[in-house]
Amino acid sequence: MGKVYLIGAGPGAPDLLTLRAAKLLAQADVVFYDALVHPDTVALATKAKRIAVGKRAGQLSTDQRFINRTLVEAGLRYDCVVRLKGGDPMLFGRAQEEIDALNEANIPVEVVPGVTAALAAAASLTTSLTKRGVSRSVTFATPRIGQGEKPGQWIDSVICSDTAILYMAVGESEEVSSALLSHGVPADTPIVIVENASLPNERQIRGTLGQLSSIASEHMAGPAILCIGRVFDLTHALPDDDAEAIAATH
Amino acid sequence: MGKVYLIGAGPGAPDLLTLRAAKLLAQADVVFYDALVHPDTVALATKAKRIAVGKRAGQLSTDQRFINRTLVEAGLRYDCVVRLKGGDPMLFGRAQEEIDALNEANIPVEVVPGVTAALAAAASLTTSLTKRGVSRSVTFATPRIGQGEKPGQWIDSVICSDTAILYMAVGESEEVSSALLSHGVPADTPIVIVENASLPNERQIRGTLGQLSSIASEHMAGPAILCIGRVFDLTHALPDDDAEAIAATH
Repeated sequence: MGKVYLIGAGPGAPDLLTLRAAKLLAQADVVFYDALVHPDTVALATKAKRIAVGKRAGQLSTDQRFINRTLVEAGLRYDCVVRLKGGDPMLFGRAQEEIDALNEANIPVEVVPGVTAALAAAASLTTSLTKRGVSRSVTFATPRIGQGEKPGQWIDSVICSDTAILYMAVGESEEVSSALLSHGVPADTPIVIVENASLPNERQIRGTLGQLSSIASEHMAGPAILCIGRVFDLTHALPDDDAEAIAATH
Repeated sequence: MGKVYLIGAGPGAPDLLTLRAAKLLAQADVVFYDALVHPDTVALATKAKRIAVGKRAGQLSTDQRFINRTLVEAGLRYDCVVRLKGGDPMLFGRAQEEIDALNEANIPVEVVPGVTAALAAAASLTTSLTKRGVSRSVTFATPRIGQGEKPGQWIDSVICSDTAILYMAVGESEEVSSALLSHGVPADTPIVIVENASLPNERQIRGTLGQLSSIASEHMAGPAILCIGRVFDLTHALPDDDAEAIAATH
């Protein structure tokens, strides 16, 4: 019996992979990778069978139970099995379902953390998600819900945190903005949509919560996250004199 | 004029550094590193001057304004300046203050994201921070406040999210547990303290919110995070039959 490694491939750029992940990929006998993992990252698994188990919102993708079963079968057959997931496995990666299936089959499993998309976006924006006097809490949430889950639970977490990052939210911009506005979040709350964070085709689209649904129509097909909060107010990033000058023109 | 890179060194284990960070360290002319960065990581900067600017809660540390000034001076003098921070720079790293100082001096700055401690802890615990039907939102917050900040703003963010990770909280366990309990968070809410996440001396201490202050007295001197929420209930991780058997014995 082998071991299964659930590995975070990072946000997109191949060099945002960890050293540990790169080493394990080189040792892997078989790699199961998500649709969003960069081909150069998958290519590091030089001696492995490489199998796409594409999971992509809104597109035809491999059933989760089939992936669970496939990992168990691979763990019984190979020494070193890698399951490569975009970002970090433990944030919106459905990792627990895979871990539980492997535990149930008594197959050893180890998780290798990765850089999640929110942190890559913050890096690109050179905007810290926390900032003394402005933000001491950051929520990572999604408006997407699974079968049997109550809608709207994400709203409170956004309202109660100083900074919020919404994953898989841009396709539902109208619902997101009307939900937050109707719960009293100010329409002038700064937002940024970051598409393809860390990749050469990254786009940053800035605006306010009130502009979200019109801004999101500019958004293309790449994976995107929605950043919400006062830290994204550009005037904060300027020296005091400049900020005052900008404020004076409004 | 050079460029300053704010680089996330990851949670502790040297091989949880990104490939990009490793490459930049090898190119650096000077590296300013935090107290918690692993010596093996600092050692990757083979041709650089290496300068500790220790920042460690509760201990004597370099003044932030002095660090800001030092980075600006280094940016004017060297081609490749690296500022190496534990975890990810954009989460509780005071990165914005350094970025603003560099922007003000017109020195180019680039941020390289890293693996934050919360995700390393989740990996060690093999517990996904999100889980369908249990957790669709995760808050990273801290009860530590700066001068002029209102205390207690972190409480709402913990209450409103399905999963919460508190940074720099274990030293204030009594205040944290009494604040959450008095705001109606159930005493049997599962918690885990993870100390030295990803390092060989990592410790995981499990319990409930009601036990937090007694559990935290076992806690030693290493950096630790406090994980709160139903996903940390161990019975969730077991197959249905086992979970029922455990429930029956209680």
